[in-house]
Amino acid sequence: MNIIYILDLIGTAAFAASGAWVGVRKQMDLFGVLVLGTVTAVGGGTLRDLLLGDIPPFSLKDEAYIYIAIVVSVVVFANRKRFEFFEKPLLYFDAIGLGTFVVIGTTKAIDFQLGALGAVLMGVMTGTAGGVMRDLLANQVPLILRREIYASACVAGGALLVILGENGVAPATAAMLSAATVILVRLLAIHYDWSLPKP
Amino acid sequence: MNIIYILDLIGTAAFAASGAWVGVRKQMDLFGVLVLGTVTAVGGGTLRDLLLGDIPPFSLKDEAYIYIAIVVSVVVFANRKRFEFFEKPLLYFDAIGLGTFVVIGTTKAIDFQLGALGAVLMGVMTGTAGGVMRDLLANQVPLILRREIYASACVAGGALLVILGENGVAPATAAMLSAATVILVRLLAIHYDWSLPKP
Amino acid sequence: MNIIYILDLIGTAAFAASGAWVGVRKQMDLFGVLVLGTVTAVGGGTLRDLLLGDIPPFSLKDEAYIYIAIVVSVVVFANRKRFEFFEKPLLYFDAIGLGTFVVIGTTKAIDFQLGALGAVLMGVMTGTAGGVMRDLLANQVPLILRREIYASACVAGGALLVILGENGVAPATAAMLSAATVILVRLLAIHYDWSLPKP
Repeated sequence: MNIIYILDLIGTAAFAASGAWVGVRKQMDLFGVLVLGTVTAVGGGTLRDLLLGDIPPFSLKDEAYIYIAIVVSVVVFANRKRFEFFEKPLLYFDAIGLGTFVVIGTTKAIDFQLGALGAVLMGVMTGTAGGVMRDLLANQVPLILRREIYASACVAGGALLVILGENGVAPATAAMLSAATVILVRLLAIHYDWSLPKP
Repeated sequence: MNIIYILDLIGTAAFAASGAWVGVRKQMDLFGVLVLGTVTAVGGGTLRDLLLGDIPPFSLKDEAYIYIAIVVSVVVFANRKRFEFFEKPLLYFDAIGLGTFVVIGTTKAIDFQLGALGAVLMGVMTGTAGGVMRDLLANQVPLILRREIYASACVAGGALLVILGENGVAPATAAMLSAATVILVRLLAIHYDWSLPKP
Repeated sequence: MNIIYILDLIGTAAFAASGAWVGVRKQMDLFGVLVLGTVTAVGGGTLRDLLLGDIPPFSLKDEAYIYIAIVVSVVVFANRKRFEFFEKPLLYFDAIGLGTFVVIGTTKAIDFQLGALGAVLMGVMTGTAGGVMRDLLANQVPLILRREIYASACVAGGALLVILGENGVAPATAAMLSAATVILVRLLAIHYDWSLPKP
């Protein structure tokens, strides 16, 4: 559980950086950058907790998440001139965060007695809804609805976790395999520029 | 109750089709189309359940709704070249869905002890908030804030249901009259191109 | 408590007017103007109550808030030709509302056992999230993410309230000082056109 918590915080930092960076590019002031960073980092898990009825949500129970998001956003804002250098490595941390968020969200939904479809949905939402909120606030069509197979990576990982769990695989093993799947699909999609069919 | 459930599923399918179609027109990939279809179909009722405190919301308790939304969205995506033929008939199913959603939302709010205004609001929200979320995700000003009297049809139906209920009309009769009002006003508004006063 | 309730209703009316006015400028019909007015007025507090788990939210428990928002929105819509005359005085009522909302939100979060950061966040959210929802519905980047130190005024007031409370200052005194801080910073920011650093 300790490793998952550490990965969760790493993912939170990576998501906050990506959100803050969108704020910088949209010419927002410091407050806007903080809001975008924080919402991107904790928005998905917070919405999941609202829907599951686990209230107050994780982000208000353990303030570490929001402190990290704020610190990272300030750092991004302060280094906005040099941020291009960080964009590439950030993609890797972002992928780690995505895998962790999907596993945490799917596992929590199963614990809350949701069905298979609901559990996968909650996993995908944990990984992606923060970025959707970021894009709504930045007044752009959510990237995830238009580009790459970011979401498909989450669906694959969440579904795998549900299937392994139903077939009696040990939770820790299932979580590791599922997170690895998300991260691998995500990195391959970036590398080979995969995308879903489009109209 | 069985008839209402069937009408509810028909409305869900119609709303999903309208949401998926917006996704297709906005050049989204398959995942985006699925998200828009699903959010349009279950977003209003899910928000209502969050506000009433009925958690997890109906859409996570009975997975039929989301399965229908996903299947319909995939069908729309696959038939996107021929979808124009379905647009006209879809308006009728959409009206049926609207009437059903308003009745379900208003009734549920009354059961949860909300006042008259709150009950009407919850009915209107059940019928319209999914479409608002669809338009936010598609980065367009919600249609409902600008066009026709879509929302007024919901207000009329919700108010009628509250008034009939307070005057001792049997729930089934009140529900039928209320849904019929929404559907009728909606269809007349389309036919005669009615709209509310504008600045 | 009575004074706070009256200030709260004044703030609700001012926020509703600002929301309705955005709807008018965006060429929305009467329904759109009502929605924007209402969402701006009660959206922040409603989101706070969802996150704190105080459900149904204040806006559905005490219908006075939504009645006021509706009446004010209709008045704005009816007087849209003459509204420019009201814009300046409205800023003062808006500042009063902001101070009151921040104090109410922060206090409520403390009552619900949130930590210091969470309490300040809930205060800021109570004061600002309604305006963010208004801007999302009007399809514009939230003003608060780009302009002036509207949000900073809320942060200052919320933080002051938490600090005073932890140092044993009487709640009524702390609330008054905190609200006064928000209002003062807000009015000074308008007067001197202050803003936060930008990229």
